[in-house]
Parts: sequence; C-alpha cells; structure tokens
Amino acid sequence: MTEAVSRPTLEAVAARAGVSRATVSRVVNGGDGVRAPLAERVRRAVEELGYVPNQAARSLVTRRHDAVAVVVAEPESRVFADPFFALQLRGIGKELTAHDNQLVLLLTEGRADHTRVARYLAGGHVDGALVFSLHLDDPLPGLIRDAGVPTVFGGRPHWSADTGAPDPGVVYVDCDNRGGARAAARHLLDLGRRRVAHLTGALDQTSAVDRLDGYRDAVAEVPGAYDPRLVVEGDFTPAGGERAMRELLARCPDVDAVFAANDLTALGALRVLRESGRRVPEDVAVAGFDDMAPVAEQTDPPLTTVRQDIEGMGRLMARLLLEGLSGGRDRERTTAGGPGARGKGVILPTTLIRRASA
Amino acid sequence: MTEAVSRPTLEAVAARAGVSRATVSRVVNGGDGVRAPLAERVRRAVEELGYVPNQAARSLVTRRHDAVAVVVAEPESRVFADPFFALQLRGIGKELTAHDNQLVLLLTEGRADHTRVARYLAGGHVDGALVFSLHLDDPLPGLIRDAGVPTVFGGRPHWSADTGAPDPGVVYVDCDNRGGARAAARHLLDLGRRRVAHLTGALDQTSAVDRLDGYRDAVAEVPGAYDPRLVVEGDFTPAGGERAMRELLARCPDVDAVFAANDLTALGALRVLRESGRRVPEDVAVAGFDDMAPVAEQTDPPLTTVRQDIEGMGRLMARLLLEGLSGGRDRERTTAGGPGARGKGVILPTTLIRRASA
Repeated sequence: MTEAVSRPTLEAVAARAGVSRATVSRVVNGGDGVRAPLAERVRRAVEELGYVPNQAARSLVTRRHDAVAVVVAEPESRVFADPFFALQLRGIGKELTAHDNQLVLLLTEGRADHTRVARYLAGGHVDGALVFSLHLDDPLPGLIRDAGVPTVFGGRPHWSADTGAPDPGVVYVDCDNRGGARAAARHLLDLGRRRVAHLTGALDQTSAVDRLDGYRDAVAEVPGAYDPRLVVEGDFTPAGGERAMRELLARCPDVDAVFAANDLTALGALRVLRESGRRVPEDVAVAGFDDMAPVAEQTDPPLTTVRQDIEGMGRLMARLLLEGLSGGRDRERTTAGGPGARGKGVILPTTLIRRASA
Repeated sequence: MTEAVSRPTLEAVAARAGVSRATVSRVVNGGDGVRAPLAERVRRAVEELGYVPNQAARSLVTRRHDAVAVVVAEPESRVFADPFFALQLRGIGKELTAHDNQLVLLLTEGRADHTRVARYLAGGHVDGALVFSLHLDDPLPGLIRDAGVPTVFGGRPHWSADTGAPDPGVVYVDCDNRGGARAAARHLLDLGRRRVAHLTGALDQTSAVDRLDGYRDAVAEVPGAYDPRLVVEGDFTPAGGERAMRELLARCPDVDAVFAANDLTALGALRVLRESGRRVPEDVAVAGFDDMAPVAEQTDPPLTTVRQDIEGMGRLMARLLLEGLSGGRDRERTTAGGPGARGKGVILPTTLIRRASA
C-alpha cells in the first residue's frame, strides 16, 4: 500500500514561480487574465515540481471531471465473454481518449449492484454516463434519472408501464434491428427456403424483440411461411443457440433455414446442425446478426449475417455525450426512431453480408 | 440525455420525517447520537422519497467513497483479449461486491494515457487502487505514488535505477513465478528430454523475467542442458507464441521439449508444432503456465501447466486493500518475496498440473 506522501502543493508552485496562489490557480484551471510571461513561469514551476492539480478542487471551478462512466447492465463475467462489449468499449475508448476524458467502467456482479452504481454516478465522480445492454424492468434507467447525470443509452431503452412514461430528454443510439432482421429473413426466403426458423435473443431486451418483429415482417409476406413453432427463444449466447437449435430440430425436423438473432447464437446453431449430420447451407441455410469480428468470418462455413457497426456505435454514443456536455447537444438530436421508439434515438443502418452459410 | 431532474433533497426528507436537517444528515451518514425511533422515522422517509445521499457530501464526512479503482497497464484491446484479466477482475469484483464497494475499471488506449489515470486517482473519486500488468519503465507507479492513493499491486513492480528506490510501503501480490517455472522445466527434464526450450513472456514484465530465471535454475542442474539458443522471446500472446516457436524450430530443429511462459504462448506453439508435423508429446513435450480455464484443458492435446490461482489473486489484492483502508493492514503484511523482491509481497504458491502434453 502506497502511503500518502506529501504531494507538491499549489503554495509550493506559487513560491517557486514567485506569484500568488490565485495566479497559479487561474493558470492551472485554464482561466484567462494571466499575462503570458507569468503563465509561462507557473507552467515551468508546475513541471519542475511535478505538481498534479487536485481534480476535486479543479472541478469545483470547471464543474468537469473529464471522466465518463460506462455501465453495462450485465454481470461482469458476461461483459468479458461476449466480444460485442469489447468492440463497443473500443469505440467509446477511442472517442474519449481523443478528448482526454477518462473511461470509467463500472462493473457489477448483477442487478442487485445497480443501486451502488447509481450512488457512484450521483456522487459527482463523472460528467456523464453511457449505459448499455438494459433488460426489461431493470431499475437502472430510473436510478440514473434520479442521479441526475447526463446519459446516452446504447440500444433503445424499455418503457414499460412499470417504469412510467419515457423521459422526453433521453438520447439513445441503436442500429436498425427490425430492418436488418427483415432483410436477413427475406434473403433466406428468396433462396427458396420455406421452413425459415428464428432463434431469438434474450426477449427482455428491445434488440431481441425488434429482430423478432423484423423476422415476422418477412415471413408474413410469404403465404404459408409463418409457423409459430419455428420461433425458439435463445439468449444471445452460443450455449443458448445450441439449446434453441436442439429444441427446434425436435419440433420441426423439416426446417430448411435458420435466422439466428446474433452471430454467437448462430455459432451454437451451427455446432448442433453439424452434430445432427445436416449440411450448411445445402440442408439448412443459416444467417446471423452483428457481423462480429472475428466470429462471423471464422465459423464453418463462414456466416451470412447482418452487419452493424458496433465500434462506431460506441464512438457515436461517446461523441453525443461529450457534445451534450459542452452544450451542443441539440445539433445531434436528429433522427427519430422507428415505429414504437420513444425518446430521441439515432438509428444506424445495417447491411446484409453474404457468405457461404446462406 | 437525461436532464437533471429534481432529486429529493435532504430538506424534503427532514420535512417528511419531522426532524431537523442535521438529524437526517447524521442518520444518513451512519453517525451516532440519534435516538432509535427518530432514526427509524428518517430511514422510512428516505425510503419513501427514494432519497439518494449525495456521495460527495457524504464522503466529506466519512472520507470514504466505497469505490476502488482497477488499473490494468495494458491497452484496452489487450485487457479484453486475454482471459487472465477477466479472471483477475472476477476475483476483485466478488470481494468488492461483498463489501459493497464499487469496482471502477479505468481503461486506457496506452501508456500515454497513464497521466490521465493518475489525475483521476488523485482527484478523490476512489478510496484506493489495484494496479496490475506493469511494464518496465512504466511511469504509473511513480504517478500513483504522487497521487497519494493507497495501492496494492498485482505482480511484483519493477524497481529500476530510473524509478528510484522502492517505496517501502508498497504492497503487492504475486505467485511464485520462479518456483513454478523451475518445477515445469524440471518435469520436462525428468521425462528424459535433453533439448528443453523456453518461450519467454514479455521480458519487460517481472513475471516473465522470474519464469525465465526458474527455467535457468532447472537446466543449470543438468549437465549439457543449457543452450542459450533454446531461449526465444515471446510476449504472452498466442501470436507471440507462434512467432517464437517458428524461430525456435529454425534455430534448433532437434528441440524435444518446450516450456512456454504462459498457456496462451503454449497455444501458439502447439499450432506451429502441428503445422510442422511434430507430434505432442511424442516428438516435443509442451508445458505452459497459468492453468487458465478453459484454455489449458481445451488445447490439443490438453496442456500440462503450472497452476496459479488467478481469481484468488484478484480477491486477495482487493482484500488487502480494503483491510488497509480500514486500518488493519499490518496484520496481512506477512510474507516477504523471494530473492530480489523488494517492497512487501504476498507470494502465492503454484502447482504443476500434469495433462497429456508432457
């Protein structure tokens, strides 16, 4: 444990530079009104003494901490197991670093810890928060609203009867989940497949619900394609994809195409199809969602999937928050979400990427 | 962006409970001297109004934030690519959650961001820091010392001429890198192998240097076993292991055993050995270090390796820090490190785990 050692003080810097304490404070905090030669002397003294301005004191003046919290509403183990979060954090990290803001990742073991997260957010340690992977009935949005910190959500938040009316000021970034899913399912139908199944994501998340809606849009257009037994619930993980695919084969052995709610689910489905002796795409065509590097390119066969720019979504969330903090937020609050979206959403486009699996 | 909405104030709680503001403050901040029935009324009012105490104000009284920073001195991309960090964070997370402390992971893009990390640490946002994966000449230990926050290091920090004398108060947790490496190399020699190679880790980290020393201890005991060409530098990643193994095969095609500095390096080595048509263990025996789940069990063949308790190391780091913060640190400052260790280290034991690869 490093003992608290004496750090060079503001007074020491003032003495070294031969100026007043107030002058040092103004220079250190980026204030105006100090003549250039004086400011230069202060800066030299700061450097020579290795003075680190006390952020708490500085933020009393600037009201900024130059730090942004990231909260992933998933247990810490999930955050590290799913490359989606690493990609999103990479985008956030790049944007924050470019603006010399510290990324403060608040990890939790589970939902029971969300009150503690809200307490940290309310405690004045960060300028704002980026929150993603919300689940239905998660108390986090309400807790964050009460904490009063500017927030941008990744993924459209739920607005259920329980959580009350949407906060009209909420900003979120999402991809076109419904449109992308519709394109994937349509592609499978266009291949001439007539028993097109869907392995869903975790249905307590809006992304999973929206992708299911997109799948339904597509099968509704083809007479005879809709069969509720072809929809099996997964949870966005490879293990969930395996379970759902086994269930699907037991229910509908005549399935000839599968649209999986994400690439990790498709990964699990491919394993079970191989085990069962079915060829992909000859017997069963498979499509995923995300185009997550390196997963989608390395499956056997390589995966046809719906690309969304995960890293770019992270960057955009960070940019919207920082612009909001510096007062320019209204410029970026442009696109409204699709049907059912409330609050202010920026919806990023998706693209179907064709590989060997469908 | 959530607008700052009016949060229930201390005054509102006082009014609801019919007590003074000072009484509410005392109850909320865990102070004594409030009669039980009054305290109960305050607690009920807090609950009914959903009052969240302002952490900044509270910490002025308690001087605690109930938050601990974790700093991994690696780029964010590496933190998510190497399961070692996830395991260590899991241990830390469990211990902090058990004590209702928030885990604050400070991510960086690289060494250039370490000054910003130190600024955040100095800013009074956390009670202490857990720091791991330090590299030689990293300015972080010095910056952290200057920030004056209590710190426990994961892995023995470097003390070079540049960074000056060790801070006698430094506490670190490490595993017995040298002893474990010695056991692995000895095991390969005991199998009758005489061309036992070592693929090192990143040699700007003490763990890699200590493992190299352990390998040298073992080969020094067997006449004729020492050959400097059998040592090739890696970097603790699978890609580094592949490169080093290719280099090794080019230099010493007669190699009959490989001790890799960690399991990920062994993973890369196994790939190259397979490509080159060599059988493991018949032609070349292979051992790793870490016994990292699930890597070591899922290699082909399963990997003989040196087990260290990575999650336990994380837990212990967190426990030592929390005990230090509550004033009980001297009890736990027990074991001194091995030869060459300075500062106060707790060294955890390692165990050789035999599987099919050696």
